[in-house]
Amino acid sequence: MRLKRTVTCGQLTGENVNQEVILNGWIAKNRDHGGVIFLDLRDRYGKTQVTFNPDIDADMAARAKRLGMEDVIAIKGTVQARPEGNVNSNMPTGGIEVIVSDLEVLNEAQPLPFLVSDRESGSEDLRLEYRYLELRTEELQRFMALRSKTYQSARSRLNEEGFMEFETPVLMKSTPEGARDYLVPSRIHKGRFYALPQSPQTYKQLLMISGYDKYFQIVKCFRDEDLRADRQPEFTQIDIEMSFVDQDDVLSLATRLTRGMFKDILDYDLPETFPTMEYKDAMETYGSDKPDIRFEMPLVEFAQYAEKTDFGVFKDNLAAGGRVKALVLKNAADKYSRKIVDGLTEWLRTYYGLKGLAFVKLDQSAFSAGISKFFSPELQSEIIGDLKLEHNDMLFFVSDNEAKTLQALGALRLELAKRENLIQPGVVKPLFVLDFPLLDWDEDSKRYIAMHHPFTSPNPEDAALMDTDPGNVRARAYDLVINGYEVAGGSIRIHTREMQSRMFELIGMDEEEAQARFGFLLKAFKFGAPPHGGIAFGFDRLIMILAGTENIRDVIAFPKTTSASSLMDEAPSNVDEQQLRELHIKLVE
Amino acid sequence: MRLKRTVTCGQLTGENVNQEVILNGWIAKNRDHGGVIFLDLRDRYGKTQVTFNPDIDADMAARAKRLGMEDVIAIKGTVQARPEGNVNSNMPTGGIEVIVSDLEVLNEAQPLPFLVSDRESGSEDLRLEYRYLELRTEELQRFMALRSKTYQSARSRLNEEGFMEFETPVLMKSTPEGARDYLVPSRIHKGRFYALPQSPQTYKQLLMISGYDKYFQIVKCFRDEDLRADRQPEFTQIDIEMSFVDQDDVLSLATRLTRGMFKDILDYDLPETFPTMEYKDAMETYGSDKPDIRFEMPLVEFAQYAEKTDFGVFKDNLAAGGRVKALVLKNAADKYSRKIVDGLTEWLRTYYGLKGLAFVKLDQSAFSAGISKFFSPELQSEIIGDLKLEHNDMLFFVSDNEAKTLQALGALRLELAKRENLIQPGVVKPLFVLDFPLLDWDEDSKRYIAMHHPFTSPNPEDAALMDTDPGNVRARAYDLVINGYEVAGGSIRIHTREMQSRMFELIGMDEEEAQARFGFLLKAFKFGAPPHGGIAFGFDRLIMILAGTENIRDVIAFPKTTSASSLMDEAPSNVDEQQLRELHIKLVE
Repeated sequence: MRLKRTVTCGQLTGENVNQEVILNGWIAKNRDHGGVIFLDLRDRYGKTQVTFNPDIDADMAARAKRLGMEDVIAIKGTVQARPEGNVNSNMPTGGIEVIVSDLEVLNEAQPLPFLVSDRESGSEDLRLEYRYLELRTEELQRFMALRSKTYQSARSRLNEEGFMEFETPVLMKSTPEGARDYLVPSRIHKGRFYALPQSPQTYKQLLMISGYDKYFQIVKCFRDEDLRADRQPEFTQIDIEMSFVDQDDVLSLATRLTRGMFKDILDYDLPETFPTMEYKDAMETYGSDKPDIRFEMPLVEFAQYAEKTDFGVFKDNLAAGGRVKALVLKNAADKYSRKIVDGLTEWLRTYYGLKGLAFVKLDQSAFSAGISKFFSPELQSEIIGDLKLEHNDMLFFVSDNEAKTLQALGALRLELAKRENLIQPGVVKPLFVLDFPLLDWDEDSKRYIAMHHPFTSPNPEDAALMDTDPGNVRARAYDLVINGYEVAGGSIRIHTREMQSRMFELIGMDEEEAQARFGFLLKAFKFGAPPHGGIAFGFDRLIMILAGTENIRDVIAFPKTTSASSLMDEAPSNVDEQQLRELHIKLVE
Repeated sequence: MRLKRTVTCGQLTGENVNQEVILNGWIAKNRDHGGVIFLDLRDRYGKTQVTFNPDIDADMAARAKRLGMEDVIAIKGTVQARPEGNVNSNMPTGGIEVIVSDLEVLNEAQPLPFLVSDRESGSEDLRLEYRYLELRTEELQRFMALRSKTYQSARSRLNEEGFMEFETPVLMKSTPEGARDYLVPSRIHKGRFYALPQSPQTYKQLLMISGYDKYFQIVKCFRDEDLRADRQPEFTQIDIEMSFVDQDDVLSLATRLTRGMFKDILDYDLPETFPTMEYKDAMETYGSDKPDIRFEMPLVEFAQYAEKTDFGVFKDNLAAGGRVKALVLKNAADKYSRKIVDGLTEWLRTYYGLKGLAFVKLDQSAFSAGISKFFSPELQSEIIGDLKLEHNDMLFFVSDNEAKTLQALGALRLELAKRENLIQPGVVKPLFVLDFPLLDWDEDSKRYIAMHHPFTSPNPEDAALMDTDPGNVRARAYDLVINGYEVAGGSIRIHTREMQSRMFELIGMDEEEAQARFGFLLKAFKFGAPPHGGIAFGFDRLIMILAGTENIRDVIAFPKTTSASSLMDEAPSNVDEQQLRELHIKLVE
C-alpha cells in the first residue's frame, strides 16, 4: 500500500479543515456532477465524502469516474468545509469533504449480487451465500459490534465478581442424554469417537470439585438436532458454575450479570431483583414455562363454568381428566370474523394438535356467536361478573388434555398479543421461573427422563417423593426468561455419589451404563465434592434480545441454515476416500 | 447448606479478631494435640486454621477428630489471635485461628490416590486420570489463575486497540492443507462431513472483506497430527487480523500486545521494540527459525577452514553442496569426555539423522583429541585467532547437507546451553523472525507446499522470481519467537483473486481443485477485498512461558495425552451402533 490511512472514514469534522489526510475504504456511493466526482468512502467507522475536481487533476477525475461501487481505494487529500447547501447533518462527517490530490486503487469490485445499502435487496439464501457482503450492511455491522461489546461486558462483570475463566475440551467423551452428539472419529484409536460438547456440564462440575469456586466460560456448544428456526447446530453459552451456594446465590449473580449487560450495552435499567414464578403457575397462568410478561392476558380457569354449560366437549374432557381454560381478549370481538377464527383454529390444529377452538363474543351484556347457545343466561351473568367482561370482549376456550390445553392456549395468548399490538416496544421484562419438575415422563421409552439434565438436584423438601411419586419431585432448577425467551437455565447440582446414582436409577440407567458413561464423575464425587450449582446463558439469544431482532442468524457472523448447512462454503462437503480410510470408517451405501 | 460461608479461607487476619465467621472448604491438614483438633481449611483463596476444643464442645471435637483429609466441611466460629509461638508468618492468615462453635460436614472424601500437597506423589498418568484432584494442587491452581488473567489481559489490550471480537464456525468445510482435519459426519447430509478448524484463517479473511477492519478471537483450533510432547490435538489461539496494514503495523500491534500481557501478568517490562532477524540469518546463526537468543553461542561458518583440513568427510560434503559449521563451547572441554560426546552423537543420530559429530578441544593453544590431527598447526593458529579460542574451549563440527547441518547444530547449541546453564533464569527475550520463504519443496509429493499457508502474500520485491525461481521467493510472513518458542506467526495475506490463483497453481492445485476447496474465498476476492494481514498467538505456549513451565499439559485444565486420549473420562470411546447408523457410516473391520 502506497497510501496508508492516517484517519478513518468516521472521524473527520469541521475541526480538521485544511488538514492533509489519507483515507482507505470502500466506495459506497458515486455521483458525477458536471465532471466533478463525489464518492462516499466507507469503512467500519463511518463514511466520508471525497471529491475529485477535474480542474485540479483531470486525469485523476477521469480515473475516479471509472471507479465502481464497493471498489477499495486509498486517497490523499485536504479536508474542506462543505458549501453551506451541501452540509449533511445526518452524518458525523457531513460538514466536510476531502478534496483528493492522490488516488490508489487497492482492489476493484465486480457488481454485487445485492445492495450493501439495502439488505432486503437479496433473498436470505442469496445473502447467506454471500455472507461476507451481507456483513457489510449497516444492520449486521451494528449487530456484530453489539455482540463484540457484550462479550466484554459479560466477562468484565464476571471478573469483577471473582469468577475465573476456563477452557474445557471440545473433543470429549460421547455421553448423549437428551440431544444427539456430534461425533468425531479418532484416527489413532481405531473404532473410537470423540463427541463435541452439548455443554461443558461435567467439566464445570469437576472444576468445582477441584476447588475453583467460581467458573465461567463463553463457549461453543453443539447439538445434532433437527433444527427449529431459532436454533443453530453450534451455539454459544455463557457458562457459569459456583461452589458453596444455594439457588438464591445463583439467581442473584444471574440478576447482577443480566442487569450489568443491559446497562453496558443498552443503558437500560432492569429492576434490582427480578420477579419469580413457580413453573406450575407459569404453566397455569401463561401456558408456557417461558412466559412473556410484557403484557397480561392470563389464562383463566374455566372448569367451574364448563361444568354448568351444555357443551359436551368440555364436560367429556373434564370427565376424562382434561382441562378447560379460557382467554379474554378485550374490546376486539368485532375484528375476529368467522374466517379469522377459522385461521387461528387451523393454526392450532397444525402446530399444537388441537381439535378445535371455541369462542363467544360479548354483545352488550350477553354472549353471542360461537358456542354462546350452550351458556344459560344465569351462567353468562356469572361469568361476565367474575371475569369483568364488557361489550366487544371475546372469550376463547381451549379444552383438551392438560398439556395440550395449556400449550395451545399459551400460544394463542402470544398470537393475539401480536395481532393486537399488546407489547410495548422497547420494554424488557425479566422473570425467573423456579421449581421445575425433576423428571418428565417419556411416553416413547416408557421411562422418566431428566427435565433439565441428570445432574440436577431434587428439592430436599420433596425427598420423600423420590421413591413414591418421582414425577412430582421438584428440582432445584430455574430459568431466566426475558420477553418470552428462555435466556438462561441452570440448577443446583447433585454433589454426592449416592444421590447421583439414585438419579441415574430413576431415569432408567443401570449401574453398568452409569459407570460406562459417567464413571469419572461418580468417582470424582468420592473425593470431596462441594455443594455447587450454576447457570448457562444462551448467548446468541441474549444478543438477539439486545439487538432487537427475531432472527438468530442476524447475530451470528457465519450462521448455518435450518438444515445445518453453510450456503457460503457449502459445508458439510464430501471428503477424500483417503481421509475416511485413515479414520477407519466408510460410508454406508 | 446450613452454614454458608461469610468469608473465604484466605482473608482473615488480626483485624478480624472476635468476629463470628463461617468458612467452607476442604481439610488440607489435621492434627490432634492432646484432644484439641487443629484443621487447616483450604479453598481457592487460601488456608485458615480452625480449632476444635473438647473443653468447649466435646462431641464436636470428637466428630472433628473423625474427619479426614479433603473432606468438605462448613464451620462457624470466632476469630482469635494465635498464641505467640504458633503464629505462622508464611501464610496471610497465619496470625489467627478460628475457634469452632458449629460444624457441618458437606461431603466426605475417600483417601486420595496421591497427595494434593505434593504433586510429585503420583505419576503423570495417575494424575491425569484424577485430573480434578491434580487441579487442586497449589501449582495448577496458580497456572489456571494465571491463564484466566491472561485471557482478560489479551482481550482488554485488544479492545483498547479497537479490535472487535468474533466467533467463527467450529463446524466448517474440510480443506486440509498441511495437517489433517478432524472430521464430523453429517447426519442430515448423508455422506458429507464437517471439519473442525485448523485455524479460522479463511473466516477472518472474509471478515476483512466484510469491512470489520480489526478482528480478534481467542479460539480453539484442531489438528489431527501425530503428537509431539508439546502439542495437543486441540489448542488455543489468539487470532488477529487487520485491514489496510503492512507488516510493520502487524508487528507493532503484536509487540504492544505481548508487552501488555507480560506487564499485566508478570509485571515484566519487555523492550518497546523487539529485535528482528531474517529467517536466513536465524538459520545460519542459530540453526533454527525460532532461535533462543537468551544466550549467544552462534553457529560458526567453517567451510573456509574445512577446505584446508585433511578431513575427507568435510571436503566430500562441501564438494557435494553440503555444509560444515561449528560451535564454540567456552571453557568446558574438560567436562566433555569421550562417553559424553558419544551420547550427544547418538542423540543427534537418532533425532536429527546425523552421521557423526566431530570435535576438537583446546589444550593450551593447540587442538587436541577428536579430529585434531586433520588440522595443520598453521590452520589451528588461524582458527584459534579468528574464533578467539582459549584453553579448555571445545569446538563441535557438524557437516551434512544444509538442512541437516543447520538443524542438528542448532539442536546441539540448545542442548549445550542447557547442560552448561547458559540461560539466565527469569530472562525473556522476544525476537521477530522475518522473510520466511514462501514455498517449501516437498520431496514426497515432488511439489512446492506453502511454508506458512497458501494465503500468504509473496514479498513484492520477489515478484519476478515467482515464475523463474519460486523456491527463492520470500513471503511477507513473520514469527514472534520468545525464549526459543514460536509464540506467534502470521503474514500479510494475498488479497487479489489473480495472486491467489497464482499461488494455488504454484503449490500444484489445479483450478478445479482450487474452486472445489476455496471457491468461496476466490469469489469473495472479486467484491472488494482490502489489503490485510494478521497474526495468531499460540495461547497455550504463551501461558507456558508466562507460568515458567515446560509442560504444556500444566497450563490446560483437561489436557490429552500424546496419543490424544483423555485418561480421566477415557475419550475417545466406543459409541452405539445406532449413533453410527444415523450418521450413515460404519466402522472398517
